[in-house]
Amino acid sequence: MSDGPRFITLEGGEGVGKSTQLKALHAALAERGLHCAITREPGGSEGAEAIRALVLSGDDSRWSSEAEALLFAAARADHVEKTIRPALEQGHWVLSDRFLDSSLAYQGGALGLGVERVRELYRFACGDFLPDRTLVLVLDEGAERARARDTEGSDRIGGRSDAFHRAVDVAFRQIAAQEPDRVRLIDASGTPQDVTARLLDNLADLLP
Amino acid sequence: MSDGPRFITLEGGEGVGKSTQLKALHAALAERGLHCAITREPGGSEGAEAIRALVLSGDDSRWSSEAEALLFAAARADHVEKTIRPALEQGHWVLSDRFLDSSLAYQGGALGLGVERVRELYRFACGDFLPDRTLVLVLDEGAERARARDTEGSDRIGGRSDAFHRAVDVAFRQIAAQEPDRVRLIDASGTPQDVTARLLDNLADLLP
Repeated sequence: MSDGPRFITLEGGEGVGKSTQLKALHAALAERGLHCAITREPGGSEGAEAIRALVLSGDDSRWSSEAEALLFAAARADHVEKTIRPALEQGHWVLSDRFLDSSLAYQGGALGLGVERVRELYRFACGDFLPDRTLVLVLDEGAERARARDTEGSDRIGGRSDAFHRAVDVAFRQIAAQEPDRVRLIDASGTPQDVTARLLDNLADLLP
Repeated sequence: MSDGPRFITLEGGEGVGKSTQLKALHAALAERGLHCAITREPGGSEGAEAIRALVLSGDDSRWSSEAEALLFAAARADHVEKTIRPALEQGHWVLSDRFLDSSLAYQGGALGLGVERVRELYRFACGDFLPDRTLVLVLDEGAERARARDTEGSDRIGGRSDAFHRAVDVAFRQIAAQEPDRVRLIDASGTPQDVTARLLDNLADLLP
């Protein structure tokens, strides 16, 4: 592949250490001399943050699954147009805390809208733009049960049930099976250093 | 057709007298003993009004055409679920100031997204739910030019150019040609009473 800047996304359910790994991966890329912008979803641009505030407030029945998926797609169109594409065009790598695959797994899989229907919305929003690599932090079943016991959600999405979070995990694994080149499952067990090393291994072919 | 409650939408470009006709039509239906709820787009439910505020604020480049269409579709999903369907289920008629066909004409036609792409978003948002009748107020070309001179827009949409409003008009006419049973073009010239009579003529087959 060419040596241009890359768009990398980090995904995973609640409590798998995603925030820690985001910082560690960012530092590891900086050590390699890569300027890398960090962003996040939902949000990541002024308009998308306003939509994020709208989606995450209120109780669980405030938005239907369809309305929520449309709002996330609108926020993503804005995020790509105003933040991600401009950074890539300036030659920066971009690392996003969640992106398309969270919508595929949460709305498409766990909430039952269907992964293909949510992909269609994404194509409407962003055309054929996709991450160069998506790293999904996953735990095996035993570790996942312990994680589920320890995680207390604080907003509409974190606060959903264990069954919901298991369905998200299953959906992430299915998406990775469908797109093995773009989407990689990363074992989130072990020390943070172990996990960061696994993330970097799965970016090796993209690094200059 | 059966005598159940009907969902009627009133459409048209800026300055064709839509607000006046909305009130007149509502009064005429009430005279016939029909309880009719009035609603509007963008907005029409608590969630949709919050989205409306987001879309209509800011300058013209705040949202891409795609983001705007996704936001309107999210608002419409909420409007149908929280306001329109519950009213119909209680046996009330519903009259909406703008609905799907505004998105088809503005986003799909005039902003160039394509009418079919915007229809797809609507199907995602609302399934096969559709108005029983859509009445589109239109003026012939000369009256339209006078209207265009007199209309001063006060928000992002009303403030767009004459060429934009002409494209909206063309799109409304195309949609009416595609769906002649649901969508009727109504000549908006003459006295308000004349126009209201034309609206009622085009509802005659639905009235009990």
